[in-house]
Amino acid sequence: MKIAVVAPSCTLRPEAAEAVAAIAAARGDAELAIHPQCFLSEGHFAGCDEARLAALREMMADDSVDAIWFARGGYGSNRIAEAAVRNLPSAARAKTYLGYSDAGFLLAAFDRAGLSVAHGPMVQDIMRSGGEAAIHRALDWLVRRDSAALEPKLAAGRRAMAFNLTVLSHLLGSAIEPDFNGAELIIEDVAEHEYRVDRAMFHVTANPAVQRAASLRMGRISEIPDNDPAFGRDAEAIVSDWCARHGIPFAGHADVGHDASNRVVPFDLARN
Amino acid sequence: MKIAVVAPSCTLRPEAAEAVAAIAAARGDAELAIHPQCFLSEGHFAGCDEARLAALREMMADDSVDAIWFARGGYGSNRIAEAAVRNLPSAARAKTYLGYSDAGFLLAAFDRAGLSVAHGPMVQDIMRSGGEAAIHRALDWLVRRDSAALEPKLAAGRRAMAFNLTVLSHLLGSAIEPDFNGAELIIEDVAEHEYRVDRAMFHVTANPAVQRAASLRMGRISEIPDNDPAFGRDAEAIVSDWCARHGIPFAGHADVGHDASNRVVPFDLARN
Repeated sequence: MKIAVVAPSCTLRPEAAEAVAAIAAARGDAELAIHPQCFLSEGHFAGCDEARLAALREMMADDSVDAIWFARGGYGSNRIAEAAVRNLPSAARAKTYLGYSDAGFLLAAFDRAGLSVAHGPMVQDIMRSGGEAAIHRALDWLVRRDSAALEPKLAAGRRAMAFNLTVLSHLLGSAIEPDFNGAELIIEDVAEHEYRVDRAMFHVTANPAVQRAASLRMGRISEIPDNDPAFGRDAEAIVSDWCARHGIPFAGHADVGHDASNRVVPFDLARN
Repeated sequence: MKIAVVAPSCTLRPEAAEAVAAIAAARGDAELAIHPQCFLSEGHFAGCDEARLAALREMMADDSVDAIWFARGGYGSNRIAEAAVRNLPSAARAKTYLGYSDAGFLLAAFDRAGLSVAHGPMVQDIMRSGGEAAIHRALDWLVRRDSAALEPKLAAGRRAMAFNLTVLSHLLGSAIEPDFNGAELIIEDVAEHEYRVDRAMFHVTANPAVQRAASLRMGRISEIPDNDPAFGRDAEAIVSDWCARHGIPFAGHADVGHDASNRVVPFDLARN
């Protein structure tokens, strides 16, 4: 199968691209097409909005591409997400889209547009400790829908959605907000102070559209910076408390997060 | 006039309370009632939610209190904002409420509930360089509605609203979201990376309720942490660009921010 890699947020590190291309070549079950746009750099971004959008749209419209794998997160995919799903070419509907973190803006927009998306490892995850396992997990799922790659508590008949909490908070109310109705919602976050996690959980669970979700599970909330004074409750207490306050059933932990263990969450498992 | 001080977010520093009490005593035109709750401390907060809410509600219900002045920001007023406006006592409607930063959650909830709110200096601003001027400005406005305290471009016949951008982003869609229709919306922020300002501006201007505002002005966006690589555009370019992308007229600068120059923005100038 042919997997295109584009970078809708920040620039992909060349050594990450090389390492993942070597893994794919050794496996022999996937042709990796790493778009040159991945290595552009303009300020914070992997090229200007127009360049990032053009590369993404080019790959979406390419009949020979079976899947689009987002290179990495950072920040910036929200700047092109609405345009990315405008006047969708039919080839875009025959693909799978995989990523997480900032790419959640695209997962949302694409899911809303009826495309097949999944939350899971990205190319630059090879740089993490143990990152090779994350890359194989992503490829195992993209190439042969290996169920071992999936978040273990997903249920086949139930819609699931996974997002970085901060990204989710920032897409609510926008034109790329997806439909949470009846879904199991999974959140994770990284490098945010506990007061910011608390504030984002307030915002997300206070939203009537999110309150239509069937339940909420928490992935890992990692690398929390120290706070002075200490916040006074941990991430699980924060997440479960806001779920309780806003009437969303809290369903425990999920095996996703900003790390090499990050499992795959297809939004529509029945379709995959 | 009697001005009650409560701390719905974080603990007030005792030296700030003493300095501002001395200023009020020297002026002789305001009786300052600093609630003991201001000095409570529980984790991140000036006492638990119940204690902060109880002090606020006690002062709101007190007929002898003419104004409630929020002690300081930090984080936490969102945790009690919805409860603060439940079954409002009539005494709450005869008062003015002044604050900014995290207190914006209360400004929003109170404005939505029909109370008279203003964005402006708080007690702990005395600790800033030049902070005495901010305290006098707040008192000049609370005690005698001195027009010199006001943000200079406010128009008497036009509704205005001012918020910390990050706070505004986190209250959209919640039960405390105010009505932006026809208002001049002013935003300011402090200590957020440019990519976070960009993300929050995306979120705020993408919201259909915010898009009903008449225009948007930017206060100071200060103490922006360095970013590597440099973001590539400054705060004004970020704010004006998102206004243009989402059809909100950008109306230039406003004299508000996290500093001693912060002017007062009553949400309903005609009523004050």
